[in-house]
Amino acid sequence: MADKQIKKIGVLTSGGDGPGMNAAIRAVVRSAVHHGLGVTGFIRGYEGLIDDNAVELNHRSVANIIDKGGTFLKTARSPRFKEAEGQKKAVATLKKYNVDALVVIGGDGSYAGAHDLYSKWKIPTVGLPGTIDNDIYGTDQTIGCHTAVNTALEAIDKIRDTGHSMERIFVVEVMGHHSGYIALQVALGAGAEDVIIPERKFDYQKLYEGIKKGHDIGKISWIIVVAEGAGKAHQVSEKVIEITKFESRYVVLGHIQRGGSPTAPDRILATRLGAASVDCLLRGEHGRAVGVLQNKINIVELGQACTMSIVPIDEYCNLIKTLT
Amino acid sequence: MADKQIKKIGVLTSGGDGPGMNAAIRAVVRSAVHHGLGVTGFIRGYEGLIDDNAVELNHRSVANIIDKGGTFLKTARSPRFKEAEGQKKAVATLKKYNVDALVVIGGDGSYAGAHDLYSKWKIPTVGLPGTIDNDIYGTDQTIGCHTAVNTALEAIDKIRDTGHSMERIFVVEVMGHHSGYIALQVALGAGAEDVIIPERKFDYQKLYEGIKKGHDIGKISWIIVVAEGAGKAHQVSEKVIEITKFESRYVVLGHIQRGGSPTAPDRILATRLGAASVDCLLRGEHGRAVGVLQNKINIVELGQACTMSIVPIDEYCNLIKTLT
Amino acid sequence: MADKQIKKIGVLTSGGDGPGMNAAIRAVVRSAVHHGLGVTGFIRGYEGLIDDNAVELNHRSVANIIDKGGTFLKTARSPRFKEAEGQKKAVATLKKYNVDALVVIGGDGSYAGAHDLYSKWKIPTVGLPGTIDNDIYGTDQTIGCHTAVNTALEAIDKIRDTGHSMERIFVVEVMGHHSGYIALQVALGAGAEDVIIPERKFDYQKLYEGIKKGHDIGKISWIIVVAEGAGKAHQVSEKVIEITKFESRYVVLGHIQRGGSPTAPDRILATRLGAASVDCLLRGEHGRAVGVLQNKINIVELGQACTMSIVPIDEYCNLIKTLT
Amino acid sequence: MADKQIKKIGVLTSGGDGPGMNAAIRAVVRSAVHHGLGVTGFIRGYEGLIDDNAVELNHRSVANIIDKGGTFLKTARSPRFKEAEGQKKAVATLKKYNVDALVVIGGDGSYAGAHDLYSKWKIPTVGLPGTIDNDIYGTDQTIGCHTAVNTALEAIDKIRDTGHSMERIFVVEVMGHHSGYIALQVALGAGAEDVIIPERKFDYQKLYEGIKKGHDIGKISWIIVVAEGAGKAHQVSEKVIEITKFESRYVVLGHIQRGGSPTAPDRILATRLGAASVDCLLRGEHGRAVGVLQNKINIVELGQACTMSIVPIDEYCNLIKTLT
Repeated sequence: MADKQIKKIGVLTSGGDGPGMNAAIRAVVRSAVHHGLGVTGFIRGYEGLIDDNAVELNHRSVANIIDKGGTFLKTARSPRFKEAEGQKKAVATLKKYNVDALVVIGGDGSYAGAHDLYSKWKIPTVGLPGTIDNDIYGTDQTIGCHTAVNTALEAIDKIRDTGHSMERIFVVEVMGHHSGYIALQVALGAGAEDVIIPERKFDYQKLYEGIKKGHDIGKISWIIVVAEGAGKAHQVSEKVIEITKFESRYVVLGHIQRGGSPTAPDRILATRLGAASVDCLLRGEHGRAVGVLQNKINIVELGQACTMSIVPIDEYCNLIKTLT
Repeated sequence: MADKQIKKIGVLTSGGDGPGMNAAIRAVVRSAVHHGLGVTGFIRGYEGLIDDNAVELNHRSVANIIDKGGTFLKTARSPRFKEAEGQKKAVATLKKYNVDALVVIGGDGSYAGAHDLYSKWKIPTVGLPGTIDNDIYGTDQTIGCHTAVNTALEAIDKIRDTGHSMERIFVVEVMGHHSGYIALQVALGAGAEDVIIPERKFDYQKLYEGIKKGHDIGKISWIIVVAEGAGKAHQVSEKVIEITKFESRYVVLGHIQRGGSPTAPDRILATRLGAASVDCLLRGEHGRAVGVLQNKINIVELGQACTMSIVPIDEYCNLIKTLT
Repeated sequence: MADKQIKKIGVLTSGGDGPGMNAAIRAVVRSAVHHGLGVTGFIRGYEGLIDDNAVELNHRSVANIIDKGGTFLKTARSPRFKEAEGQKKAVATLKKYNVDALVVIGGDGSYAGAHDLYSKWKIPTVGLPGTIDNDIYGTDQTIGCHTAVNTALEAIDKIRDTGHSMERIFVVEVMGHHSGYIALQVALGAGAEDVIIPERKFDYQKLYEGIKKGHDIGKISWIIVVAEGAGKAHQVSEKVIEITKFESRYVVLGHIQRGGSPTAPDRILATRLGAASVDCLLRGEHGRAVGVLQNKINIVELGQACTMSIVPIDEYCNLIKTLT
Repeated sequence: MADKQIKKIGVLTSGGDGPGMNAAIRAVVRSAVHHGLGVTGFIRGYEGLIDDNAVELNHRSVANIIDKGGTFLKTARSPRFKEAEGQKKAVATLKKYNVDALVVIGGDGSYAGAHDLYSKWKIPTVGLPGTIDNDIYGTDQTIGCHTAVNTALEAIDKIRDTGHSMERIFVVEVMGHHSGYIALQVALGAGAEDVIIPERKFDYQKLYEGIKKGHDIGKISWIIVVAEGAGKAHQVSEKVIEITKFESRYVVLGHIQRGGSPTAPDRILATRLGAASVDCLLRGEHGRAVGVLQNKINIVELGQACTMSIVPIDEYCNLIKTLT
């Protein structure tokens, strides 16, 4: 199939949704149309491939979505697609719609699926990094992470208002099961006093000393950011009360971090990657993941696209301690 | 003291903070200065009165705060001020600073304190409704409630994005211990499918029927708003899963609802009420609460200023059920 | 026709667009469906009636639009509809689609059209106030005015940042040909130093004195808000430079004031009025305009619904001068 | 002076203000304090050096400013500082305050001043790129450019609402005298149909063909972004009307692009660069400009820090044409 000329492509979003997925779909569809290709969208990720849930897309189908959060193609996690049975049905669906190649927008799990389709079923695929966690190999940024960070930051700015007024410690839990990316960014951007991330052990004694020292020079409020994978906000808050004897409150930002109109960097990244994925397929480069490194389009093998940490964690953590 | 000419006033913010308190302080200070009065600010509400924690304020002290969330005078709840001992110290502090009258910005509890100062200690006082809960007698709106509603609404808009994309039911908990005001406003404004408030019993069976009916005509996501005083989000979510067998997630918006730059209605309300409170004191109307009814300044006795519900609950609940 | 039972209604948006029109359409459609009625939407206001440009609407047609700016039915001004020829074609179109009654969302001009349809052609009509100018008789608020004020306010907050940093006078022009509503609201909300509106003569000499007095106590930046109907920003700015010899810059906020996701008050107002308009038609009250007075639904004759000023201009102007 | 141990540093902001300057000042001050240094701030950029307008800064002086737009040290352009006379006074002021080294936050002109101080007067200086135009050599991003792009993007999203509803062409003028950076970013992010920038000749005939082609497949609104250095919005709009015969409106976004709370990327960049500038001075690297290349701190000679274009203009322009 890899040598066959591509006349029609498929596109789907998979895994957790994130802001900018719509912008990516728009770029895929319009690039494809620009190159004379047909496009089929599959609904609810790999589930739509398995269940034959599809929609034909043209230039106008993706009008007015570049600024909308979420994904109009819906998304889902698909345990069934990990089984050969599910993949077989998916391949049959692709054939039914005469789809010659597939663009998958999602995170790690979605990339694994795209890799399977390419390596086991010889379907030309390409993956785009659509996840707010910014934990994909081969790209400096993932689609959605900028918006998630900004949303969390704006929330913490609001919390800081009440923190100052009421003179309290606030523990704020942000998303990130395995990655402290969002936590680090918002902690540095919000001027938070400390950050708790999965990548490093947290020292409550040092936190206590920092709070005591700050208190002595007149500080009256503190923000401690915790990545969900490194601790639960209410437990951290209780621990903080225990060691400092100060009042503490906690907030779990939760799903607001997934939604909202994408910020400029996410729309631009999604647009560039969406167009690049179609170019990649047309050049005959299949089984690849498209990303951006140092502001240039970067293409790697899908099999390589495993998780890695890319944040300068030490520099960030040092700055947080030094500047607060 | 009530007959004495007022030459200097005090101002404080008390209880839970809310957006627009700074705008109210600004209006109080600048109105007072305009009328040739001196102004002393007390820090941390009644606590600052008890502990002699004060700052002299002039026209420039309140520059550039109209758009800032929180209160730069800080705020606190003060159990000590409920005791005669605390009030006695407070009165001594007022005398020390030659403060002839006091403007108190806060909610129910703060009003009770202002009423005590007036009725028991003969201090001319006036109360301004500063609370996000919009539950003060004698005013259509309280300072902060518009911003809190807008903040919650923007959060729910974001959650709706992910709700659509992932096809889930979301339970969103908003502030309001005794009042469903915020919950009703945001439920109607967000197009939420249901709302759970302290003022009325909730019927889970009807919720189930509504979701089933919606599902049959293609609905794929639901938002259920719950006021914190009427239920805990995680419990509501579990109940929803139990009766509908659909997936459900929950979000507790929490303290983000207290902060942020005040919206236009809150700044305008705070500004009008701040100026009106000084006028009120200078006219010799003491022991009063200043509010707005039907867009006109409205003044009532502080003793009357007890909680009441002012939202057209039935109309709102009907609309929510009819339109979703 | 007025005595006939209504089985199907039409809806259109007309004149300048404003945030909340989509929320109003949603409420009209879903209320009608709830009452068992059919609904036809006409595209581009009265133009769609004349040109037979229509779309059938159901409950799902208006999903996910409550938070979207603009109007998905499009809007236009229609000089042709002022002529009998245009109205005749419009009536024929209504008949063609079996539309028994019409809801018109718009401003003054749109109300006049709805009045003509009712008084001259016996079509049951009802008008909803959809205009950012808040200049409609019989309602405290029009759909869109809250959002426009908030958008202008957020813009001025940004301008204030640079005004402070660069120490300049900024003249900011906001919408309002005949009404100073937006200008007054944002001037008060932004803490602007002066406001120029169509409703009252502006005194440049007093502006000069105010700036001089402020400068003497350390003020370094000024915001002067001007309604477009009362002066052009660049001319005001030149005049200010001439009389003060200070540097001045100007900004014309323009069309950003018409767009954006509606704020909570606009969504709630639009939702209430949309539902009330269907109730009104079904009760047999035709040729009416639906509004809100003192937070209650208020219904007046369409013929009465002429422009009037409802802002407490004197109080606002006094506050602006007193507090800056 | 370069060999002397640094015990106290100065900091100033110069030229046009931009969001993130406060965050940069905060990082400079707190890093310096962390290293045991004293800090003096100079007001209104080089003007404050010439006129002896200074303020001593400590850790608490920069509390609560990381999220505030503008610069609390004020900024100005200083023609006097281009003369030897002005520089001589500035050097005397530095001596008076025992300031051993200076951090200058600003754009091209400000860098030239810092270079003069270093090369002609042997003052250890370091420059930080504070300008919304993103046109500084040696850094991928300048402090403020992310926020300016986001602000312009949000404004265009609003304009798009009314563009769709009223079916019009909108010409939107953004900042950028010599650089099309902001224009390109927002055009791509907003899904604008065309962009006019100083770096390339614009072809109105192609614009006409694009609009005609779009119109034929149902497009009803267009956004054309123009950088202020490449054309005036009202002239572009007139030209568009002339060649297309469609209605067109224009908006000049103006100074709103300079203000507002900085977005996450600008706060993080400002924080990293502020800390890096102090490190740079302490390492004895003077007469340098600090930036970020490929997400790593990058240091170049100040003399080199001349303007250059760093946007992939061709890729962006191609995408804009391909995807709309």
